[in-house]
Amino acid sequence: MTARIGILTVSDRAHRGVYEDLGGPAIRDYMSEALTNDWEAVAQVVPDEMEAIQSALIEMIDVRGCSLVVTTGGTGPAVRDITPEATEAVCEKMLPGFGELMRQVSLQYVPTAILSRQTAGVRGQALIVNLPGKPSAIRDCLDAVMPAIPYCVDLIEGAYLTTDESRVKAFRPKA
Amino acid sequence: MTARIGILTVSDRAHRGVYEDLGGPAIRDYMSEALTNDWEAVAQVVPDEMEAIQSALIEMIDVRGCSLVVTTGGTGPAVRDITPEATEAVCEKMLPGFGELMRQVSLQYVPTAILSRQTAGVRGQALIVNLPGKPSAIRDCLDAVMPAIPYCVDLIEGAYLTTDESRVKAFRPKA
Amino acid sequence: MTARIGILTVSDRAHRGVYEDLGGPAIRDYMSEALTNDWEAVAQVVPDEMEAIQSALIEMIDVRGCSLVVTTGGTGPAVRDITPEATEAVCEKMLPGFGELMRQVSLQYVPTAILSRQTAGVRGQALIVNLPGKPSAIRDCLDAVMPAIPYCVDLIEGAYLTTDESRVKAFRPKA
Repeated sequence: MTARIGILTVSDRAHRGVYEDLGGPAIRDYMSEALTNDWEAVAQVVPDEMEAIQSALIEMIDVRGCSLVVTTGGTGPAVRDITPEATEAVCEKMLPGFGELMRQVSLQYVPTAILSRQTAGVRGQALIVNLPGKPSAIRDCLDAVMPAIPYCVDLIEGAYLTTDESRVKAFRPKA
Repeated sequence: MTARIGILTVSDRAHRGVYEDLGGPAIRDYMSEALTNDWEAVAQVVPDEMEAIQSALIEMIDVRGCSLVVTTGGTGPAVRDITPEATEAVCEKMLPGFGELMRQVSLQYVPTAILSRQTAGVRGQALIVNLPGKPSAIRDCLDAVMPAIPYCVDLIEGAYLTTDESRVKAFRPKA
Repeated sequence: MTARIGILTVSDRAHRGVYEDLGGPAIRDYMSEALTNDWEAVAQVVPDEMEAIQSALIEMIDVRGCSLVVTTGGTGPAVRDITPEATEAVCEKMLPGFGELMRQVSLQYVPTAILSRQTAGVRGQALIVNLPGKPSAIRDCLDAVMPAIPYCVDLIEGAYLTTDESRVKAFRPKA
């Protein structure tokens, strides 16, 4: 079975084509390096609109069957930044540890890491994780949380994800 | 006055008797070693059901007069894991610092610590703290948060708890 | 343009005059040392009442035009401590990273730092940050979060704040 992974770029400018989407491709490249199971990307670019973000998340999970959806953009304090609220609105449960760890890791680079409101949560059999918009920060954040993602997806009965151990050491507790 | 401490095991399997409750006894052992005041345990095992968890918490606090209730189990991302939501539903205020610190401590052992959604909150004159299900993780988490618990219970006007300083250094600021 | 900074002391005792307000002046002193732009303080002392705290926050932001409001007091677990709830009630979005970092810094000094429920959030073009009541803790918390505040206020289109680099290294990413 081929796992499906949603990659959702949330950006007014990327959606209007004013600006090239760099976040989405950065996530796709990371996953290509990290994952060793069969998988395919379900990618979309939406504007910073509550309705558009929620619809895209629901479609990726409920219709397209993604086990993991990674968003990029819209996690800051500005008035248009609403990705965390849209994520929470479609999730049944939240996982605050993802945001805590990603902010802690980003704090090693910039003191403004505390402005990021990124979070994670579960909808059905899918994990949604918010990442920042900047490609270098995307990589730092995924390095931090990726080791926990395959086991999380096991627990919610999504696809079985495996990783290249030289790249990401996924952890599954002994039964 | 004898302090009462609730110990709530949340587990479908332990409730059905399919599986021995290890979490509840681990908490009781820890408290026996750590506390030097008179206290008695009010222990119960419930399934992973919103109604059952909430009723047990309310009974332990409002009827049995517990000053501290410690739960074990039901804090993960799986569909049946709802202890944090049940806790939040019966609390007047939440204390996010407990969950943050416990996840941070657990991260030293396993990267999947970010999957734990454990939290803490206050209902009336009682503090509720969620712990994971695994006995070794229970001990690590209690070592991290126990130093702050007696003063917290003072502030909410619960029982006066004292600890064996060689085991847990409870901190109370000078007045 | 002169920036306005709200300083809100939340304390039943300071409001009744039973006890001198030390938190408000500690914040004012800190800002005087840290900020190099023109600014003026809008200071008020209110009791630990939901309605009074919310009204003061709204007045400082919507009427007086503050770009930053810093509160002191009312962040603990006691029944009268409701500053975080009042803050959340008037904010459009929350910034959990502020509370996480401030608790982490305070944990270096006291294990009871996890009892603090302080948070931060955005209302309109203003950032609200909760600080503890104790003057020494105020200083530690502001040292931790102040480097991120000017850029946060930029992002929400408040006043342009500048700092004395020898005191606080404000970080603004290169455009």
